[in-house]
Amino acid sequence: MHDVDAKLKELGLELPTPAKAVASYAPWQLQNDMLYISGQIPVLNGEKKYIGKVGADINDATAQEAARACALNILAHVKSAVNNDWSRIIACVRLCVFVNSTADYTNHPAIANGASELMQSVLGERGVHTRAAVGVSSLPLGVPVEVDAIFRIKL
Amino acid sequence: MHDVDAKLKELGLELPTPAKAVASYAPWQLQNDMLYISGQIPVLNGEKKYIGKVGADINDATAQEAARACALNILAHVKSAVNNDWSRIIACVRLCVFVNSTADYTNHPAIANGASELMQSVLGERGVHTRAAVGVSSLPLGVPVEVDAIFRIKL
Amino acid sequence: MHDVDAKLKELGLELPTPAKAVASYAPWQLQNDMLYISGQIPVLNGEKKYIGKVGADINDATAQEAARACALNILAHVKSAVNNDWSRIIACVRLCVFVNSTADYTNHPAIANGASELMQSVLGERGVHTRAAVGVSSLPLGVPVEVDAIFRIKL
Repeated sequence: MHDVDAKLKELGLELPTPAKAVASYAPWQLQNDMLYISGQIPVLNGEKKYIGKVGADINDATAQEAARACALNILAHVKSAVNNDWSRIIACVRLCVFVNSTADYTNHPAIANGASELMQSVLGERGVHTRAAVGVSSLPLGVPVEVDAIFRIKL
Repeated sequence: MHDVDAKLKELGLELPTPAKAVASYAPWQLQNDMLYISGQIPVLNGEKKYIGKVGADINDATAQEAARACALNILAHVKSAVNNDWSRIIACVRLCVFVNSTADYTNHPAIANGASELMQSVLGERGVHTRAAVGVSSLPLGVPVEVDAIFRIKL
Repeated sequence: MHDVDAKLKELGLELPTPAKAVASYAPWQLQNDMLYISGQIPVLNGEKKYIGKVGADINDATAQEAARACALNILAHVKSAVNNDWSRIIACVRLCVFVNSTADYTNHPAIANGASELMQSVLGERGVHTRAAVGVSSLPLGVPVEVDAIFRIKL
């Protein structure tokens, strides 16, 4: 079994404290063996590090970092959901990557790769997922990327 | 068991007549115990009450009402799907809230709360769900909000 | 059983070669009996036939064709996933149709019907699905439509 904590350390990554549930919805929900994760934005431990529109205020490299930060937040919630037992993850099933971008922006797949590649670096084969990447007109707080996810989990 | 019909009455809410299936897709589909609900717009009993873009033509309070109307349409379809037996609902699993908003709009979570809070007022703990809220460039008919949903149902 | 290959032939349709997996994600994934298909764009056998924004560069009829092309790409991946055995498809469960459109565009359902009607023409009753159709500010490569899908499959 791929050791996720060792891999995170090797990659120099630290999972953020999972954001508390906002009053009106939950950060994750497990139904049968499918784990749904709410849309995550690139706010790490309360810090709004990435704000702006891709193609205008923010370049591709920064937007990829932001997508990576969304993926870290997703992993932080997954870790809670499996009670720190990474071996319970069967697969990352699906990511939907929403890129806050200008009307003529076309490079969404590269931004989404920031999240996709992190999943695979950290989880190995279990991190390979299906994906949709689209450009949206605006996002909460003005962040450049939001990513939601579905995982499958051993019960 | 939380009495949903009593709760709706207490809240002064009446479910709309579920919109008929449009020719080319279905309003809901039950697969295993997961109930998928098509994207709902704030047209109640055929009346287009909410039209416009959030951040331009429509303010946050009105957009929240529109999100609430989407949630009522979702519940009307859920009611059909469970043959009026609300006790069959295990959980509202996921809402995706699409807000038709200007390029610099940032308050999507408040709009989405219109739908999220209604779910919880009406369904109690079973109404707590995961969520994504994003800004989109336009929506069918020019409505300010569209919401789709997944529920889990007792078979 | 509805004969899918005969139906495709009768409709004069040929499935494209399923696009190869891009390095950082998979075109489809089967978990339990649910088949998730990554967002498909209207690039057929490598040809970018449809580029532009609906409501500006591209009219509704062309955008419907593009949505149909997305649906063909989805079916090509489904065919791989079921090892060419169409009888294993239980249902097309859900399509999410993202339309790259101007801020005042309102005719998304007509565009989405391009994908929805193809599913039903080809799969018959098993092609009836739930759907969300929204307008997005931009899409990968500048395509007018992206569609992702969930199917249920006999194991």
